[in-house]
Amino acid sequence: MKLSNKISGIKPSPIRKFFKYTEAAKKAGKKVYFLNIGQPDIKTPEVFMEAVRRDGREIIEYAPSAGMEVITSAVRKYYLRYGMDFSEDEIITTCGASEALRFIVDCICDSGDEIIVPEPFYTNYAAFVRASGGAIVPLTTYPENEYHYADRAAIEACVTPRTKAFLMTNPGNPTGVVLTPDEMDLIAQVAIDHDLFIISDEVYREFVYDGKPLKSFGQLDNVADRTIIVDSASKRFSACGARIGSVLSKNKELLESLLKLAQSRLCAPTLDQIGCAALYGLEQSYFDEVRAIYEKRRDAVYEELKKIDGIICTKPSGSFYITVKLPVEDAEAFLLWLLCNFDDNNETVMFTPAEGFYATDGMGRSEIRIAYVLDETSLRRAIELIRLALDKYKALGMK
Amino acid sequence: MKLSNKISGIKPSPIRKFFKYTEAAKKAGKKVYFLNIGQPDIKTPEVFMEAVRRDGREIIEYAPSAGMEVITSAVRKYYLRYGMDFSEDEIITTCGASEALRFIVDCICDSGDEIIVPEPFYTNYAAFVRASGGAIVPLTTYPENEYHYADRAAIEACVTPRTKAFLMTNPGNPTGVVLTPDEMDLIAQVAIDHDLFIISDEVYREFVYDGKPLKSFGQLDNVADRTIIVDSASKRFSACGARIGSVLSKNKELLESLLKLAQSRLCAPTLDQIGCAALYGLEQSYFDEVRAIYEKRRDAVYEELKKIDGIICTKPSGSFYITVKLPVEDAEAFLLWLLCNFDDNNETVMFTPAEGFYATDGMGRSEIRIAYVLDETSLRRAIELIRLALDKYKALGMK
Repeated sequence: MKLSNKISGIKPSPIRKFFKYTEAAKKAGKKVYFLNIGQPDIKTPEVFMEAVRRDGREIIEYAPSAGMEVITSAVRKYYLRYGMDFSEDEIITTCGASEALRFIVDCICDSGDEIIVPEPFYTNYAAFVRASGGAIVPLTTYPENEYHYADRAAIEACVTPRTKAFLMTNPGNPTGVVLTPDEMDLIAQVAIDHDLFIISDEVYREFVYDGKPLKSFGQLDNVADRTIIVDSASKRFSACGARIGSVLSKNKELLESLLKLAQSRLCAPTLDQIGCAALYGLEQSYFDEVRAIYEKRRDAVYEELKKIDGIICTKPSGSFYITVKLPVEDAEAFLLWLLCNFDDNNETVMFTPAEGFYATDGMGRSEIRIAYVLDETSLRRAIELIRLALDKYKALGMK
Repeated sequence: MKLSNKISGIKPSPIRKFFKYTEAAKKAGKKVYFLNIGQPDIKTPEVFMEAVRRDGREIIEYAPSAGMEVITSAVRKYYLRYGMDFSEDEIITTCGASEALRFIVDCICDSGDEIIVPEPFYTNYAAFVRASGGAIVPLTTYPENEYHYADRAAIEACVTPRTKAFLMTNPGNPTGVVLTPDEMDLIAQVAIDHDLFIISDEVYREFVYDGKPLKSFGQLDNVADRTIIVDSASKRFSACGARIGSVLSKNKELLESLLKLAQSRLCAPTLDQIGCAALYGLEQSYFDEVRAIYEKRRDAVYEELKKIDGIICTKPSGSFYITVKLPVEDAEAFLLWLLCNFDDNNETVMFTPAEGFYATDGMGRSEIRIAYVLDETSLRRAIELIRLALDKYKALGMK
């Protein structure tokens, strides 16, 4: 009874091993500031539960495999605001962006096929691609270079005869990098030149700061046939537990394949589709308010980080993450020490070591990801704790 | 931009092509009795929506990847009733049985690995196995032999060095066949002899008739390490749209692999876990009442079928399906004629041609699946319509 190599080879979640240490720290009476979680702390708009409560169906029955009309039409209308005209047939409702990504990768990759992904990247991409039998070819980026990845030579160096797609999160997780319109054009042109799909994970789309425009690959006509957009209600509406995502594409052949996978698993959850349809119908002011909250938090985190000697970080333009290179050799060892051996006024801090966001061995060992989904005061204190801890760490002669 | 062979090769749903004809029949003013759908018509018990409405959380947040304590503990207690003692760590909550099956097959199959499945089988197994890169090896069964599949020689004839598991639905879909305790022991012994996993899809567990005992592979101690149970709230509680299933296993290595896939997709829907936890807590009387309803329907369908000359069918012992061999050469052609050219008092009938439930080409062409999820009067009339239609079909010289 041997298990499959493809799943056995997936690394377990890097965060899991720290769970027992955060629990121990809490048991020891320490307050732990959690900067590691991508779970928004902003309330889910009440229209979600109102729509669910109002729904009077007596049988919680299957929804159509591609999604209920109520949600696909709401998603369609949301996209129209940004000048993207997807018909309801070009939108497939999924169990979160996670299922959307699995379906897409399965439709594209046979065993041995490759997908180029700028690293550091959202860890679970590795699981989705590996489960499909494919492989991620990482395009390594560096904190010293602001995690810039829209570089023709660098991308082309990753292309092989087995390359099927270029996959990125934009705005970025874990870096917060947002592609400029010129960079998007460059990636589009490389995709055309090498006949690649563009898989654009845009679940953080509304989280773009400094008044920069919200751009989507769905707005680029020259790659309309090869662009696959991943969308989700999770982050945008603080509705992660609703598990409602979407794939949007104008490629009929791909849509046919996606539909087969959608049909094979019957449907996404019915009531959550109804709740999320109400969310997609929220007015522009909702996005503006939420964006303003996150932008202030980003500013606070960045301001506090700048007080720390020897770190390398760039003010991120989007999402709610920032990746930071610390002046330590091993961020995991530093985190372990933070949880087990450090406190200031009985408080300490938890973040995500960034090594797990890299596919290349040895990369990212000094880097961490911070999620700014706490209130501003807590965020300032949490970054202060990192600063105080680093001082003590150095004073103790540790690196 | 070539799509993957593994998904391109999945056949589209056989039901889909009939959709336009049922729509046309309805538009032409015909009443269509739908015998093709596995969507229960019994109301979802109100405790589901009560639990969802009562839940006061302000953020619809991620649930734990393996499931919320409220649902895993409810599933655990339900299994204890049948003498099966699974700890909460041995239960993983999934987005329906569909995701459970995909996860299991992914954890077991690398490209080229094989899973033996008695045919006819639930069509979507083919998609799950194919998406994993594996292949189904069908163990063909026959209506003349009551779709019997617990046959050592027949199973062993399917075993190759790449065989990883034996997968079945018990009680059966589409056949309604329920394994006897002796047959389960035989399958267990074959699995031990050839070192196979047993994947037992038991989503219809409560639907066993004639006072027969409800048996699960989870009750067989000699295969505890190789048994993987698939469970779901969908059919048992008429909650198909909640998308809450489970995998139960005592194999630690498998559970580790399953957990990696569960973590990669974050979680099953939060509110639906809360609603389904309430369902799993229903008392025994609920199952008895629902079972009695389906048993009466099964009796009615069987009684009416017996009035039809030349058909072959066995009174099924479980689930809510029956597979019937009709005295026609091509059940799809007959169905098309039913929808386009036949009516009795402006009524006609829709069923599922069974060819799609077979992996072997050419098998099942004369067979159909009937789902008895309508009230008894409608079911009797629907079967009567098949009888009247067959008479007319023959009278017209069609086969």
